[in-house]
Amino acid sequence: MQALPGFRDFYPEDLCFRNRILEAWRRVARRYGFVEYDGPPLEPLEIYAKKSGGELLDQLYRFVDRGGREVALRAEMTPTLARMIARGHKQYKKPIKWFSIPQLFRYERMQRGRLREHFQFNCDIIGEPSLEAECELIALAIDTLRELGLQEEDFVVRVSDRLFWADLLGKLGVDPEEWTHVLQVIDKSEREPYEVTVQRLGKWAQPILSVLEEKPRWPRLQELLDRLAWRGMTRFVEIDLRVVRGLAYYTGIVFEIFDRQRRLRAIAGGGRYDDLVPKFGGEPLPAAGFGMGDVVLGELLREKLPGRERCWTLDAYLVLVNEDLRPAAAALLQSLREAGLGADYPLSVTSVRKQLELAEERGCRYALFLDERWCKGLVGFKKLKATEEGAIPVDKIVPFLRERC
Amino acid sequence: MQALPGFRDFYPEDLCFRNRILEAWRRVARRYGFVEYDGPPLEPLEIYAKKSGGELLDQLYRFVDRGGREVALRAEMTPTLARMIARGHKQYKKPIKWFSIPQLFRYERMQRGRLREHFQFNCDIIGEPSLEAECELIALAIDTLRELGLQEEDFVVRVSDRLFWADLLGKLGVDPEEWTHVLQVIDKSEREPYEVTVQRLGKWAQPILSVLEEKPRWPRLQELLDRLAWRGMTRFVEIDLRVVRGLAYYTGIVFEIFDRQRRLRAIAGGGRYDDLVPKFGGEPLPAAGFGMGDVVLGELLREKLPGRERCWTLDAYLVLVNEDLRPAAAALLQSLREAGLGADYPLSVTSVRKQLELAEERGCRYALFLDERWCKGLVGFKKLKATEEGAIPVDKIVPFLRERC
Repeated sequence: MQALPGFRDFYPEDLCFRNRILEAWRRVARRYGFVEYDGPPLEPLEIYAKKSGGELLDQLYRFVDRGGREVALRAEMTPTLARMIARGHKQYKKPIKWFSIPQLFRYERMQRGRLREHFQFNCDIIGEPSLEAECELIALAIDTLRELGLQEEDFVVRVSDRLFWADLLGKLGVDPEEWTHVLQVIDKSEREPYEVTVQRLGKWAQPILSVLEEKPRWPRLQELLDRLAWRGMTRFVEIDLRVVRGLAYYTGIVFEIFDRQRRLRAIAGGGRYDDLVPKFGGEPLPAAGFGMGDVVLGELLREKLPGRERCWTLDAYLVLVNEDLRPAAAALLQSLREAGLGADYPLSVTSVRKQLELAEERGCRYALFLDERWCKGLVGFKKLKATEEGAIPVDKIVPFLRERC
Repeated sequence: MQALPGFRDFYPEDLCFRNRILEAWRRVARRYGFVEYDGPPLEPLEIYAKKSGGELLDQLYRFVDRGGREVALRAEMTPTLARMIARGHKQYKKPIKWFSIPQLFRYERMQRGRLREHFQFNCDIIGEPSLEAECELIALAIDTLRELGLQEEDFVVRVSDRLFWADLLGKLGVDPEEWTHVLQVIDKSEREPYEVTVQRLGKWAQPILSVLEEKPRWPRLQELLDRLAWRGMTRFVEIDLRVVRGLAYYTGIVFEIFDRQRRLRAIAGGGRYDDLVPKFGGEPLPAAGFGMGDVVLGELLREKLPGRERCWTLDAYLVLVNEDLRPAAAALLQSLREAGLGADYPLSVTSVRKQLELAEERGCRYALFLDERWCKGLVGFKKLKATEEGAIPVDKIVPFLRERC
């Protein structure tokens, strides 16, 4: 019996690793003034059709439910967000700064960094038209990675602007019906042989590629870099006009984050999408956001963080030498827990050695001994993995441990 | 555009409420020495068939995936746990004490306290045959509810024992093939007219109902109550032999938690299930556990906790009087955030009044003013919803806020 291919069982050590990522996301988002929301993991199929179309629809886990509804497992968060904003945004002052950490599902060909489920950190700013929104989002993404111990030698944010492309393709006279094709070729150009790109761009190859080679200064990207410089973040960012992003719905600045060596898939991606909320029945509201998954990031972090470490702790483990003392031990255990301390004891009495081994596995700081000293009102204590040892009166245990744990 | 019927959008206020429950579950479970695990929200269909059969299979969200596999949305956690234990238990000393907070899915008729998804606190002890395991689990369930502010006047744990029924039905000579039927009638008897129960029990009505009226003392339940008494928990618990639990797999002690007035559905339920792990290919391992959902509990708590409160906070909001000061404000904002403080500023400059209103909505403690005092190196401050006010040198802001926030 196994989990489905592409799905993960999280044993406690795996969950520690996952929580280290998810808790860093939460901590930094809150520090930036974002508040958390969530939506259902099962959605009406149509919300995905409304936003993206194309590739995504072929990757959905979709089916008809017992009530005859066409439904799909949540494949990205933005449609859910757009629906919630369209219905509820009037209750909130603008700009709305929200984040969420949904688990997402796509039936994809599995490869390194790509499973069929992952957790994705989604951060969005709704109702703010200025570039400061993109700046805030990029800074948040950077500080999240820094919080996890990554630095400028580990990752880079590559920024681009859809408006640059709209301007260029317009000036060149590219037929609007060809834009999607051209932009897709540009987006893939980094991963394709030069000749393939030239061939796919056809008559637009020469003008477009020569503009790219000149590395033109595009004022909005310069302004974005200036704003990031005020926050001391220039070293994490570079302009790369080839970044287009696959999804059809971006309308302005777009960005992606990659590992510096470019060995892995994208760590994060996002941009401005001013036209989405009205599609879900809301009024026009400018919006920008990004998503960052736990799988690629996890691979990058495995080199920096211990991969499968037990991160749980317990303050006290009561060592019980015989069952006669259980009533007293149970009362003591309860008083420790009611004082907010993490405490455990053996559910059946085993040897003292075995109990101490279990205490160590549980990450316990202090062993407390209920033994022959108990009739004198004393509880033996021993600091595990250390040398502190002694006995203290029963009624002093809570303050004793509180001070030390 | 709406979420599917029976599925919840969690706006930030709703997520605050949800998190208050989920965080209490996590905090108390850890205090009891349980460690967290998780599994996939989509599972092979067969794992549900293996455990339960019957009613559950008719409520599954099931479909065939793009690879031709029969799959189902996770409808309960125990099959996933049993699989993980069967594969991985050798890495862990016994007893294993694990908890998880999965979101579960069932296509049910909706009614008060029953949606089509909910979050369920699952706690299990694997590898411990003694009654102390059940005692630990019941104590944990009680302390979780107490952590949320509920007391003995709010809820009651009703305990029973499948072995009592095995003993009684055996003594009465009830045909083993009739046991399931008889036990189901007993389980429902509280919610049915007496005559209906009598009629459904047929010839077993008189002997069974007269035994129930005598409230027989069953030694194992007395022992369980004694053990709970050592922990000071008697007042939360009563013996009720009619509790049987619907699922076929319990083998010993079973318990359910209800609101005292019995106005709502069960808050939690659990018991011993020693025969389950081998069904998933593992060696025989004694096991006991319980599940507690967030929906019924949430209804009970709404009377005790504010229902839809904004629980987020921010340490500082920088009030910006014009865009010229943005470079300085951005640097200050970044230094506050890098110091671990929660801080925000306007992404576009609006009136001071509007900025202060936004700061209050964000739950902000201090407004910091970048105004005419800035050229003297001073930042104005004002404690929101209070009277503290003044100006401090820029380089003293971080320690100033750290001390107060």
